[in-house]
Amino acid sequence: MTGLPMTVPADGLPARVRIHEVGARDGLQNEKSAVPTEVKAEFIHRLAAAGLTTIEATSFVHPKWVPQLADAEELMPRLRDLGHVALPVLVPNERGLERALALGATRIAVFGSATETFAARNLNRTVAESLAMFEPVVARAKAAADGPVHVRGYLSMCFGDPWEGPVPVDQVVRVAKALLDLGCDELSLGDTIGVATPGHVRTLLAALDQQGVTTDRIGVHFHDTYGQALSNTLAALQHGVTTVDASAGGLGGCPYAKSATGNLATEDLVWMLDGLGIETGVDLAALTATSVWMAERLGRPSPSRTVRALSPKE
Amino acid sequence: MTGLPMTVPADGLPARVRIHEVGARDGLQNEKSAVPTEVKAEFIHRLAAAGLTTIEATSFVHPKWVPQLADAEELMPRLRDLGHVALPVLVPNERGLERALALGATRIAVFGSATETFAARNLNRTVAESLAMFEPVVARAKAAADGPVHVRGYLSMCFGDPWEGPVPVDQVVRVAKALLDLGCDELSLGDTIGVATPGHVRTLLAALDQQGVTTDRIGVHFHDTYGQALSNTLAALQHGVTTVDASAGGLGGCPYAKSATGNLATEDLVWMLDGLGIETGVDLAALTATSVWMAERLGRPSPSRTVRALSPKE
Repeated sequence: MTGLPMTVPADGLPARVRIHEVGARDGLQNEKSAVPTEVKAEFIHRLAAAGLTTIEATSFVHPKWVPQLADAEELMPRLRDLGHVALPVLVPNERGLERALALGATRIAVFGSATETFAARNLNRTVAESLAMFEPVVARAKAAADGPVHVRGYLSMCFGDPWEGPVPVDQVVRVAKALLDLGCDELSLGDTIGVATPGHVRTLLAALDQQGVTTDRIGVHFHDTYGQALSNTLAALQHGVTTVDASAGGLGGCPYAKSATGNLATEDLVWMLDGLGIETGVDLAALTATSVWMAERLGRPSPSRTVRALSPKE
Repeated sequence: MTGLPMTVPADGLPARVRIHEVGARDGLQNEKSAVPTEVKAEFIHRLAAAGLTTIEATSFVHPKWVPQLADAEELMPRLRDLGHVALPVLVPNERGLERALALGATRIAVFGSATETFAARNLNRTVAESLAMFEPVVARAKAAADGPVHVRGYLSMCFGDPWEGPVPVDQVVRVAKALLDLGCDELSLGDTIGVATPGHVRTLLAALDQQGVTTDRIGVHFHDTYGQALSNTLAALQHGVTTVDASAGGLGGCPYAKSATGNLATEDLVWMLDGLGIETGVDLAALTATSVWMAERLGRPSPSRTVRALSPKE
């Protein structure tokens, strides 16, 4: 719709937001069947052409656990022309790091948990054991032959846990600090089951601030399970956060959350940021076209409300 | 999920919000076929039992235009035991007002437009002509034999219009003031096609403030077409608004918006307000059960993300 959203800035918000696009990794790893490598490569190229500058590309978790992304070795060489785009990859352990470095990865992410139950179920370790597993990964990434690799630390279950319920803020701050102490360059605070609300977001960010974890090292990763992702994002932006995770078309989600809705859709985020006059560099029409194209490949409509509203066929 | 959302208040928000529930009117009038009167009556009783205190019950628009609500005369007597609940009804003109008053209505709503195109298409009048039509309705409502009737003025297309695009803030303020000058007690600012973003919301509210239209006379009515309803609501709450329109289960929508998603779902709203510790009096579990029950009657799942996530069957 021409001229919409109308651009009307609000006070106290950043001028620019960096979107960390997770659809190709977090989205596609939650698909029932693997998407062909050439479709993944085209998806990432289309995302880059739409203006996304950080696109998480794949994962080096053992193919036994994530068969959907078993083709990392085939995919990465197809992305070599995207030198201007940051293409972080998920790395669970030293073996994964070796594979990633051999393919020229310059940004990695490790995946931690703020709660013991999720650490046990997802990583088969205690929180302390998972940190111990990450320690040599981060150290070796920082000492890589071609220069230090940028390390993102995902921290999941920062607001609620399906087994433990509410997660105390202090507990999240403790694990967040531990990840930074290992050498992580940035954190992504995950509301893995989508239960957060804006006051909780502000309180966690303030508690991190108090411990010296400033917003320039923080990304937020909200899920839309209860429809809360965008209002939580607004609360985070009001606190000064400038890195927001989102998934093109709303692909993916948490297998432990009941609802089909998972990641915040990048298009819903861009609609809000465009309306607020916050720069992202993303072309909403091109991004929506990409998600419509991907939805056709996957054989089902995008859960993104913006994609549905802008999609020509509905 | 026990203990979730975790209650963590945020600064600068109201202690209490009054939810103006529109599902029974705005929701059901957008259904393809009419819902039986006894189902409507049970729906409204269940909404009241879930703690909603303002439930828009039906419409006195001519049955030719809204056949879905042609049973207002049959429905209203079935709600007589709900004396503790405000049950506003939509009234388009003097004939509608007569019908409503004859049934004992003590609260009515008129439905205006901020744009000429929507006024022409929806009311078959100019904006000025529609205000002239409302004038005697409001005057007679205020002079009703059993005491003055409370009048709400809906103002649709406050942010964008499907034909005109962006709607200038000044234009909205002008029509809003005109509705209040007629004698309306409160306004409901409608984002009928769901295109608003938080800065636009704050700017409109500030412009109204400047013209003496304070937040105590304002309700907000956001649509979720682009996934923006809840973040816009947060922006309105931060400005001091304490009346929020929502539709149980996300029923209804605007026939002029492409997407199936329409009204902000009351459950998604209550999830956020519960998390923020803002009182509504609504029991989320009872409300969700009501929307699940209604979805079964309508034969399709609720579009509310909270309802889907909390629904036992998915």
